[in-house]
Amino acid sequence: MTDDTSPTEPTLGIGMVGYAFMGTAHSQAWRNAVSYFDVPRPPRLTAIAGRNHDAVRAAGAKFGWQHVETDWRALIARDDVDLVDVCTPGDTHAEIAIAALQAGKHVLCEKPLANTVAEAEEMAAAAAAARSRGVRSMVGFTYRRVPAIGLARTLVAEGRIGEVRHVRAQYLQDWLVDPNAPMSWRLDKDKAGSGSLGDIGAHIVDLTQYITGDRLTGVSAMVETFVPRRPQAEPSAGSGSKLGGHVDAGRDVAMGEVTVDDAAVFLGRFGGGALATFEATRYATGRKNAIRIEINGSTGSLAFDFEDMNLLHFYDGTEPAATAGFRRIVVTEPEHPYVAAWWPPGHLLGYEHGFTHQAVDLVTAIAEGRDPEPSFEDGLQIQRVLAAVEQSAAKDSIWTPVAG
Amino acid sequence: MTDDTSPTEPTLGIGMVGYAFMGTAHSQAWRNAVSYFDVPRPPRLTAIAGRNHDAVRAAGAKFGWQHVETDWRALIARDDVDLVDVCTPGDTHAEIAIAALQAGKHVLCEKPLANTVAEAEEMAAAAAAARSRGVRSMVGFTYRRVPAIGLARTLVAEGRIGEVRHVRAQYLQDWLVDPNAPMSWRLDKDKAGSGSLGDIGAHIVDLTQYITGDRLTGVSAMVETFVPRRPQAEPSAGSGSKLGGHVDAGRDVAMGEVTVDDAAVFLGRFGGGALATFEATRYATGRKNAIRIEINGSTGSLAFDFEDMNLLHFYDGTEPAATAGFRRIVVTEPEHPYVAAWWPPGHLLGYEHGFTHQAVDLVTAIAEGRDPEPSFEDGLQIQRVLAAVEQSAAKDSIWTPVAG
Amino acid sequence: MTDDTSPTEPTLGIGMVGYAFMGTAHSQAWRNAVSYFDVPRPPRLTAIAGRNHDAVRAAGAKFGWQHVETDWRALIARDDVDLVDVCTPGDTHAEIAIAALQAGKHVLCEKPLANTVAEAEEMAAAAAAARSRGVRSMVGFTYRRVPAIGLARTLVAEGRIGEVRHVRAQYLQDWLVDPNAPMSWRLDKDKAGSGSLGDIGAHIVDLTQYITGDRLTGVSAMVETFVPRRPQAEPSAGSGSKLGGHVDAGRDVAMGEVTVDDAAVFLGRFGGGALATFEATRYATGRKNAIRIEINGSTGSLAFDFEDMNLLHFYDGTEPAATAGFRRIVVTEPEHPYVAAWWPPGHLLGYEHGFTHQAVDLVTAIAEGRDPEPSFEDGLQIQRVLAAVEQSAAKDSIWTPVAG
Amino acid sequence: MTDDTSPTEPTLGIGMVGYAFMGTAHSQAWRNAVSYFDVPRPPRLTAIAGRNHDAVRAAGAKFGWQHVETDWRALIARDDVDLVDVCTPGDTHAEIAIAALQAGKHVLCEKPLANTVAEAEEMAAAAAAARSRGVRSMVGFTYRRVPAIGLARTLVAEGRIGEVRHVRAQYLQDWLVDPNAPMSWRLDKDKAGSGSLGDIGAHIVDLTQYITGDRLTGVSAMVETFVPRRPQAEPSAGSGSKLGGHVDAGRDVAMGEVTVDDAAVFLGRFGGGALATFEATRYATGRKNAIRIEINGSTGSLAFDFEDMNLLHFYDGTEPAATAGFRRIVVTEPEHPYVAAWWPPGHLLGYEHGFTHQAVDLVTAIAEGRDPEPSFEDGLQIQRVLAAVEQSAAKDSIWTPVAG
Repeated sequence: MTDDTSPTEPTLGIGMVGYAFMGTAHSQAWRNAVSYFDVPRPPRLTAIAGRNHDAVRAAGAKFGWQHVETDWRALIARDDVDLVDVCTPGDTHAEIAIAALQAGKHVLCEKPLANTVAEAEEMAAAAAAARSRGVRSMVGFTYRRVPAIGLARTLVAEGRIGEVRHVRAQYLQDWLVDPNAPMSWRLDKDKAGSGSLGDIGAHIVDLTQYITGDRLTGVSAMVETFVPRRPQAEPSAGSGSKLGGHVDAGRDVAMGEVTVDDAAVFLGRFGGGALATFEATRYATGRKNAIRIEINGSTGSLAFDFEDMNLLHFYDGTEPAATAGFRRIVVTEPEHPYVAAWWPPGHLLGYEHGFTHQAVDLVTAIAEGRDPEPSFEDGLQIQRVLAAVEQSAAKDSIWTPVAG
Repeated sequence: MTDDTSPTEPTLGIGMVGYAFMGTAHSQAWRNAVSYFDVPRPPRLTAIAGRNHDAVRAAGAKFGWQHVETDWRALIARDDVDLVDVCTPGDTHAEIAIAALQAGKHVLCEKPLANTVAEAEEMAAAAAAARSRGVRSMVGFTYRRVPAIGLARTLVAEGRIGEVRHVRAQYLQDWLVDPNAPMSWRLDKDKAGSGSLGDIGAHIVDLTQYITGDRLTGVSAMVETFVPRRPQAEPSAGSGSKLGGHVDAGRDVAMGEVTVDDAAVFLGRFGGGALATFEATRYATGRKNAIRIEINGSTGSLAFDFEDMNLLHFYDGTEPAATAGFRRIVVTEPEHPYVAAWWPPGHLLGYEHGFTHQAVDLVTAIAEGRDPEPSFEDGLQIQRVLAAVEQSAAKDSIWTPVAG
Repeated sequence: MTDDTSPTEPTLGIGMVGYAFMGTAHSQAWRNAVSYFDVPRPPRLTAIAGRNHDAVRAAGAKFGWQHVETDWRALIARDDVDLVDVCTPGDTHAEIAIAALQAGKHVLCEKPLANTVAEAEEMAAAAAAARSRGVRSMVGFTYRRVPAIGLARTLVAEGRIGEVRHVRAQYLQDWLVDPNAPMSWRLDKDKAGSGSLGDIGAHIVDLTQYITGDRLTGVSAMVETFVPRRPQAEPSAGSGSKLGGHVDAGRDVAMGEVTVDDAAVFLGRFGGGALATFEATRYATGRKNAIRIEINGSTGSLAFDFEDMNLLHFYDGTEPAATAGFRRIVVTEPEHPYVAAWWPPGHLLGYEHGFTHQAVDLVTAIAEGRDPEPSFEDGLQIQRVLAAVEQSAAKDSIWTPVAG
Repeated sequence: MTDDTSPTEPTLGIGMVGYAFMGTAHSQAWRNAVSYFDVPRPPRLTAIAGRNHDAVRAAGAKFGWQHVETDWRALIARDDVDLVDVCTPGDTHAEIAIAALQAGKHVLCEKPLANTVAEAEEMAAAAAAARSRGVRSMVGFTYRRVPAIGLARTLVAEGRIGEVRHVRAQYLQDWLVDPNAPMSWRLDKDKAGSGSLGDIGAHIVDLTQYITGDRLTGVSAMVETFVPRRPQAEPSAGSGSKLGGHVDAGRDVAMGEVTVDDAAVFLGRFGGGALATFEATRYATGRKNAIRIEINGSTGSLAFDFEDMNLLHFYDGTEPAATAGFRRIVVTEPEHPYVAAWWPPGHLLGYEHGFTHQAVDLVTAIAEGRDPEPSFEDGLQIQRVLAAVEQSAAKDSIWTPVAG
């Protein structure tokens, strides 16, 4: 501004690696954290890194990133970068995050933390070492920051549903249902680690553990790859959404092998005794991003579906039978987590708002000298659940304890 | 009627054993079959049997049963009884049904067919022997006759959802969530065979197999008894519903052991390759009779919830993306199964209508000399699925093929 | 029954005039009243009257009516008939009902009470005269007996929603949306009195007044006939539902004039100050029998839709904002009106159950020497509301007080 | 950016007057237009004006506005401002907008266009004059830019629902239901022009006209002020949402007079013959921002509720009856209006996204030399509808044609 004076509070220089889907969501988040919230250490969009200079420059310009780097190591090395935000595919998380932590930079790493338990263990160790030096780290299970999810966790913690008996979680998408949807890095085990399991199954593991405040102790699982070979080509023009798409049947294209799971289903047991069922799939025709979670407790229940993400359904079993019923709570009241910063009641939030909440929580924790959640250790634990799922599925669904 | 003439068509004399919950539903069904449908061989409510003469007489009077018996053997022996309707607890099904078949009576037997695979095998053998003599038998998986379920099966059979990828089925009730709900025969393995598994899990096994026209080949399972001991007493007056209820904490009552499962969860695989998840529980607080079934196919999907039993949700994946969406079909059109006999569109049917449809289908099959469905062999196959669930649950959830 | 003894309680001989749609519903009701409820004076299905002997005889046989009459005067004259149930079109209500009352028979008369205010006034006068002789009368606004409606009334009466501010009521059907649906008595003002207004609009006037315990004081209205001429022919075979249907365009058929409204919309004011909007139409494509009622009070709200007739939505505004939400009450608990007589929770009731509840309430009032509700005076008041709607619509929607 | 080069395309300097609720939403929109869309003339957040320097400076800093002005005339006079965005209360719209247009600045003016028809006429005249000089203007009926609304309009325009028969529109909020919610400018006729009618009723008039492509020709109306006096005080701390709030009963506060309507209900007729009902209220307890619109056509229907703003329900009456049903379209596909710029399917948009779409459409129209919609003339027509509502309500709800 013309009459601007330098801000008196210290700012936090953000350096982001990656600029695709997650990069866009995170850029908006860093910017919005200042626009809507009073954060103790306002983030600056300092530098963005990507291998293709023109592409990353264009992406950076859209959100006002101040500098561009084509080597993430150079980004980490910048003095004006205080926090490194890792938005790349999973196979690069460990290397970048560990280097950043060792360089004394705070780290936000997209989920899943890593592609293997071994990598995740290294990352957790690096985070623990960094923590002793006041360097903070967080893994980006953003859906935790949907207000309805926060409310769900609060209700469980307050004992409003009693002892948890059942957990029922599904993450349903359908962008692979077309057998002519093309290959992508998300279908390549080397890049993605796993398929639906790590990409979306990880979210429902995190969310159910977060809401219940409890952890899975073991699983019995099946995984499946319904369409094992797909065209190795760009999707035809205008053939659909950013995920998925379609390759014209008539085109003479090479075929690639899908090396990850299309769907994963598993039973589980929580530490407190609850029985759980989980399902993650990209083949649930008609379900676009249905993260459905139900928790049945001894005195109440909760239900959530991300396709109606501003709603939480709460059944209070202590109500008289004549007037008991699932309450459709529109989670847009100022009393609800994060909502007071936004719009009046009934003015809905969308997908990307959770990223802003995540940025605010992280920046606040850093400014206050606290460790943010979920930690890299939390990310490692989820990785161990996913590994147990794969092990059980490989051994006739035998009950497989979660390691650690 | 004053000017009545004898009906020219032959009638079918019904003899019913049992007169509680299922007896009431069946009585209404036999009566309604004549009132709403043109059946080729109208059923007569000939005789009803129960051990307590006064109670069975009172129950019979409410629906116009013509005769009362206190010994089911006497009922089977009556010349005016052509069909024996078995509405007793599961431990008596085999004995009564086999005796009736051997006496040349058609049999309708409530589900589950029996409490053990061995009993079910004997019953299926008796049914096969009787069939060769023109004696018909059927097991009462009534929910098949809900119009929305019939429509679902038709849509799958017509290829409207393509190849089935996912089956997701839950039967959720909550009448045991109160730890002071009393013991009942339904919680006693000797009487009931199993708990939620046989009582309600059997229904979702039947329904998903019926809708898909496919069968489960194996399972991986867990079962649980959350509240192992319950008061051995009548529920306190006015303490709630016919199922469940509550015993006052202050009363000095003996405790009984719950010998059946409270909940069962299992993964499964259908013959055609679909992945399945199943859950049956009486601890889903706030869910009263939620039979929820979702089928995801390669080109479409279906969703049903018995708590909205007049609706079927159908997603046609061949629609253009801009206008595709789950259709909320109100299954009350004359074009829908059974509906033309009832009310105009939008005038909903209720729980008991399925029993009438079942009676109509059975009477029609008998009149036309066809075998009705589901057969005792179908009931046996479901019993084998339930047995596989129990075996898997007893062996660390190991994958367990369905026998047969 | 073979060993039956004569019932010690006196029974109530029912004589029913009419045997079409409403006749079927009422037959089931008289029968079910005995089967499911303990009524102090059990109804007998004594005699049924209709002009076509064969048709009425066939209809009577389906439900076990004991005698057939082809002249309603003969039916009224029978000594074994204690109550006359009038299920004919509206133009005959006054004559039959008044004759029956004068003959000392209790009367149940289908809604709307009459086709004109003048007729309704005569009927109310006859009812008042009969009442002084202990002869009871009731008009059949059956939807009052849907359990969710009864619960709604109770919640308002208990003050759970505070002072009523808004009433929003729609009765939406679509069976006339096809311009080739044929003429029928329902489209003929001489027979039907009015169109959507009296047929379905009357229901939402009654229901909102019943739930709020308040009455409309005036209206401002519009009515419309979208399709003024229709084919005078039977619907083509298999052309659809009992209402509506379709006449093949190719057929050379005479056209008849629709002399009633297709749709009526009106604003209103209740005695307590609430603002109201009403809409009744048979042209709401896709809505089959959507009776939708919303009541907003100063501390709570209610919402109901007959297409989900087992649900009542209740918002308690005294809840803390964080957990307030519309509760989806599944109105199938034994604590709910009428429900204890039927099935366990979550086992839904259907359209026709309300008729049984109506029969039970009427028989009980007669046995106890009380006047049942709604009375003929109540029916007259609704007729006056409908007349005010027609008057306002005829005079540029001018505000028109309800007479009386 | 460090290596930034000046953009080759011309930019559009935005000057915004006002910085409260609407100011925040518009700031985000101008910024996001560049971040998510490829706009031909990217907006710059050039200057923001408000009377309180510190407050406007703080607001501007949150979104990166480059300059601050405390006099809107100075803002209009700036050479670097190409477009003036009017986000002030309605009583100042005319003066600011006309001055800006006369100064050759494009104008975006928040709705309602003005507080009176006379002002709106002046504004429309100024817009017409400016148009001839290539200066563009637009009124901010932002909800038109919700993707589901755009899809609804497209479906009507394509004839997918046939001839429109019924329009049913409600805008329901509840932030005044507490009689101790304080006075505010929104309850003062001098500032706000009207109450629920202009604030929210204007939106449903615009939306229904936009979707149907038709206009209201007349109305019959009632308005009501339920709570005529309210405390003249700041809401108590933490007493709730940005709208509404609560003043502690114990406080000794002056009372102010509410000079606007709390609720308005009206009937209407569209040019094409459709019957319409409208309701706008801030007393619908439990409804937070429920913009509900239903359109019934001769061959199909549409339904929308802003509380589920990413959904459009579409009934295709040309489907066979057995599979017809309202389709729940999740309007998040790249084929849907505006959506391709955002996230993958099923990742919901929120309230503020419509503002970005509005900014994009306006900037694009300016760059392409076209007149954007809705024009000031469109805004004037809506003002005339609102005036007709007030006139009818003042004259016994008499039918009142819309002027113009």
